[in-house]
Amino acid sequence: MPRQITAFSNPLVKDVRALREKKGRRRQGMFIAEGLRILTEAREAGRLPAILFYAAGTAHPLLETLIEEVEAAHGDVVETNADILHKLSGKDNPQTVLGVYRGFDLSLDRIDRSEAPLWIVAQSLRDPGNLGTILRTGDAVGAGGLILIDDCVDPFSTEAVRATMGALFTQKIAAARWDEFVPWLRSGEGQLIGTSLRATLDYQEPAYTKPAFILVGNEAQGLPEAYEQECDLLVRMPMHGKADSLNAAVATAVMAYEVLNQWRRA
Amino acid sequence: MPRQITAFSNPLVKDVRALREKKGRRRQGMFIAEGLRILTEAREAGRLPAILFYAAGTAHPLLETLIEEVEAAHGDVVETNADILHKLSGKDNPQTVLGVYRGFDLSLDRIDRSEAPLWIVAQSLRDPGNLGTILRTGDAVGAGGLILIDDCVDPFSTEAVRATMGALFTQKIAAARWDEFVPWLRSGEGQLIGTSLRATLDYQEPAYTKPAFILVGNEAQGLPEAYEQECDLLVRMPMHGKADSLNAAVATAVMAYEVLNQWRRA
Repeated sequence: MPRQITAFSNPLVKDVRALREKKGRRRQGMFIAEGLRILTEAREAGRLPAILFYAAGTAHPLLETLIEEVEAAHGDVVETNADILHKLSGKDNPQTVLGVYRGFDLSLDRIDRSEAPLWIVAQSLRDPGNLGTILRTGDAVGAGGLILIDDCVDPFSTEAVRATMGALFTQKIAAARWDEFVPWLRSGEGQLIGTSLRATLDYQEPAYTKPAFILVGNEAQGLPEAYEQECDLLVRMPMHGKADSLNAAVATAVMAYEVLNQWRRA
Repeated sequence: MPRQITAFSNPLVKDVRALREKKGRRRQGMFIAEGLRILTEAREAGRLPAILFYAAGTAHPLLETLIEEVEAAHGDVVETNADILHKLSGKDNPQTVLGVYRGFDLSLDRIDRSEAPLWIVAQSLRDPGNLGTILRTGDAVGAGGLILIDDCVDPFSTEAVRATMGALFTQKIAAARWDEFVPWLRSGEGQLIGTSLRATLDYQEPAYTKPAFILVGNEAQGLPEAYEQECDLLVRMPMHGKADSLNAAVATAVMAYEVLNQWRRA
């Protein structure tokens, strides 16, 4: 049976609220995902929340399923109200369902490159919206996952989780320093493809081979030159404009669809 | 000579601060753009701010040029400090340069379709980041501009302007209801290309003709069915994932690069 929490002073409310900050997430090893759609994506990918909050009066067959499965897995099911959900999520119009999940292990050795033909690698990505958008793109193009290099935004931040629209649970995620990533990459097969404004090779010219690793750089600085030199291919998209830049998540998607389209033709 | 403002009580500070809200922008017919990079893009596109704020002590040749040109155009140049800039921009780490611009006329008859082979049309786009990203993409692919249909986010909101990275000033922008747009579109040449999850035609199959109008729908709902029926071509990108969706700005960019790539090959 769900238990009820309606008091702001409840210690669980305080704990979950602390997950909105990186410090809280690190200390507790948990993170928040909001909304029935994302929680259902997670469930279908085999991930159940450790704690499931829902607003009293919410009626939906997908919520029923979630409650049953979380209870069967001996998770904590909490019936609460909109005020508490507002406090937990920080949003003015909070979703009526919120899950608290155990954080994933982000070590590189969780990545089995043979599981997918395509992987995305992002270096010093700072914007949670871009991280979420790139994970969604990875899901759409059938990538295996996203490898975060150096100092990236926390993939478990509430904003990032929201922007992934559930792809956080369908894509593998790892985090590593560049100096760990390169030996790992070179220990097996893989074509490292960087996009750069300095490149002269048009992105439609090379033949891309599997597994392909698309490397995208920081939103403001792009890739460091040393990182570009490590790439097997350094390509550029045509740019006709004055601003001479594409959003990092957009560039990743345009590149990923080119690779996918080549393979579809083959 | 620049004048100095360092008092929060200055009426100009109050007026400019009001531009962070839509009501203030509508009443004053002005909007804010921040940062030397964006202001320089605007200048190069022939747009000078009516009022130029900069933090005392900021030294940069591009700022010198801006000050000279704004003064020559009888604009208002104001030397101020970081506290005032924080108050105006609402950001914790404000840019040291901020411009106040006259809003553009967004009427559809400002758009001359013969000026560019490609135009982007967005329906009920709600996210300022997406709007900015789509304008940047339009700049990169050599589009003429962006036509906003129905109830879209305000392109002059501070968040949207920031996300355009200057493309707000290099791309034409118009806003119209669907019922105005369709007669305008059909009054001349133009292929209306919609992307939809309901489409069966792969986006790489058709031959795209100039001028092409790429139509993208609302982030959550996509295009209304009646709007899809108006399209000359309704196409879909391959999606291999579980989430079965792409971010709206990403889908626009993948579509736009396909059109561009076809034309590059021809």
